[in-house]
Amino acid sequence: MKISGTPYRTIWPLASGAVRVIDQSRLPFELHTLDLNTLEDAAHAIRTMVVRGAPLIGATAAYGLALALREEASDRRVEEAARVLEATRPTAVNLAWALSRVRGVIAPLPPAERARAAFEEAGRICEDDVEQCRAIGRHGLAIIRDIAASEGRRVNVLTHCNAGWLACVDWGTALAPIYMAHDAGIDVHVWVDETRPRNQGASLTAYELGAHGVPHTVIADNLGGHLMQHGRVDMVIVGSDRTTAAGDVCNKVGTYLKALAATDNGVPFYAALPVSTIDWSLEEGRRIEIEERSAQEVTHISGLATDGSVRSVRVVPEGSPALNLAFDVTPGRLVTGLITERGVCPASREGLRQLYPERP
Amino acid sequence: MKISGTPYRTIWPLASGAVRVIDQSRLPFELHTLDLNTLEDAAHAIRTMVVRGAPLIGATAAYGLALALREEASDRRVEEAARVLEATRPTAVNLAWALSRVRGVIAPLPPAERARAAFEEAGRICEDDVEQCRAIGRHGLAIIRDIAASEGRRVNVLTHCNAGWLACVDWGTALAPIYMAHDAGIDVHVWVDETRPRNQGASLTAYELGAHGVPHTVIADNLGGHLMQHGRVDMVIVGSDRTTAAGDVCNKVGTYLKALAATDNGVPFYAALPVSTIDWSLEEGRRIEIEERSAQEVTHISGLATDGSVRSVRVVPEGSPALNLAFDVTPGRLVTGLITERGVCPASREGLRQLYPERP
Repeated sequence: MKISGTPYRTIWPLASGAVRVIDQSRLPFELHTLDLNTLEDAAHAIRTMVVRGAPLIGATAAYGLALALREEASDRRVEEAARVLEATRPTAVNLAWALSRVRGVIAPLPPAERARAAFEEAGRICEDDVEQCRAIGRHGLAIIRDIAASEGRRVNVLTHCNAGWLACVDWGTALAPIYMAHDAGIDVHVWVDETRPRNQGASLTAYELGAHGVPHTVIADNLGGHLMQHGRVDMVIVGSDRTTAAGDVCNKVGTYLKALAATDNGVPFYAALPVSTIDWSLEEGRRIEIEERSAQEVTHISGLATDGSVRSVRVVPEGSPALNLAFDVTPGRLVTGLITERGVCPASREGLRQLYPERP
Repeated sequence: MKISGTPYRTIWPLASGAVRVIDQSRLPFELHTLDLNTLEDAAHAIRTMVVRGAPLIGATAAYGLALALREEASDRRVEEAARVLEATRPTAVNLAWALSRVRGVIAPLPPAERARAAFEEAGRICEDDVEQCRAIGRHGLAIIRDIAASEGRRVNVLTHCNAGWLACVDWGTALAPIYMAHDAGIDVHVWVDETRPRNQGASLTAYELGAHGVPHTVIADNLGGHLMQHGRVDMVIVGSDRTTAAGDVCNKVGTYLKALAATDNGVPFYAALPVSTIDWSLEEGRRIEIEERSAQEVTHISGLATDGSVRSVRVVPEGSPALNLAFDVTPGRLVTGLITERGVCPASREGLRQLYPERP
């Protein structure tokens, strides 16, 4: 997608052998890129949310493994590097999926060929992600088109967190259908949950929608229920960090509350995700490990000060502790459908089996 | 309640004839009081949330009317002053209730006696509020005591926004039972929703619980649902800005989402409110006028900078609009009970009729 007319992806390899990413921790007020030269650079970028979003975490981990193998590519080094990368974020399943995909390719190769092969596989993971997001966009577009046709007016879509192109390599998952609807001339407007505590909605979703010219309004996470009660939301689309084989959707904390409100008000609620987000080994969403992040993400907020600098301010009194769990799980019963690269299916074991009959 | 060992109320008259309030817009980082000398001072304090919380808005409006009558106390002046005060915040019904109560007392009096009588009535409104909050505290304490007895461990209470003593004259509504439980030696811990966009939870509830020594943890508004799914919340208590005769509870935006999660997880959900918060003229909550406040409350956040000053920072990109509706309505069907000064009743017409049989 474009920023000020220039096409961007979130991650791309350089001729030097390094990997360049957009530093998302500095958006929306500063657009900077960062070069990853080592395994530790990649792990740090994932851990500190320089890159974030389940598909992009996977792509970065794949490149991180490739970077690790540039100096040494023994089996032991592969093992070590994968362990470091897997420990960066515990919830998104794409991370383990991407590492396993790269490892599958390089395992039979002699060490001398592994780094190059890993880079190539990471590149293919990125290309596949772009194609999958494009396919998700097309399937979701059909849903938005139907609502536009039946309502005959602007379509209001609510989204939580950032599952746009900044969370992927390009296009996005939840936002891909919105970009396609907008580009197709459908009058679509997005309610952007600010998404505390990290404010990915206010800082990333608002930024990328604004950069593409899609009408949107930022709201406190608290407001979506009221808007649904008053008919001001036609559908909800969110991304997912891990979806179980039974259709439970793990996503940014607060997603579950929006799904409850959608169900209570008859508003369709969709999760958009590529196959790499599905954890076929897990049925029950409540067994997913939920990442606990620093309390400082709750007690402090950073933003643009009047002098033009980005500053952090404390919003909770000294001495008041805070708890920061990053995800929650929405049971499949509250989800109208999963939008994947293969189409739309019910959020259930049977629904997923229809789309992925080859899975055990 | 006490701040650093000194007993405080949120509002009190001075010998000079002015009225002093705690400036809540500067908490939690600066404890300052502000003197209200005129009608406009009082209206401004309510409008800008120097004072906030339904019962305190009522008390401040009552004093505001008294201040307005110090120079002139004609019928026309009374009418004008009431109109100015009523326009400050549209949602809280206590405001209209308090003005009507003062007007009822002064209407039969000659103008020369009205200001003094209005001050006295405002003082009685404050005393009544303290007594009502104390009674609410006792009724709510019984619920917490039962949970503590049946669970035999720490009781975790979630609250949204600030319905503590800072929202009232003393004690609070939702927090009164918690203070009483804590003072009675029950091990109670409070999950404090930060309550975006104005952060009344993070700044006021955390502050007053901390000042009184009640264990608490600040969380993003998004987290409560997850905590309820995992058995980490034993009950929810919130305040109310207006409760209808049929038991629909209007409160700070986001309350509805917590009520949905409580219902989905079998967690008891209570609203604590004095009789002055009940709008006997209204059945349907969805007909309550919801205040729209400045978008800047969403796009900017103020907090303590590292240099010790309180600063505002922008968290939403320039060019991204925001919508800021301050309240939502929780249907009575999602409310386990209303805790009023007369006891606990179902959130329904029949329930309220049991407690207030004298009402039409």
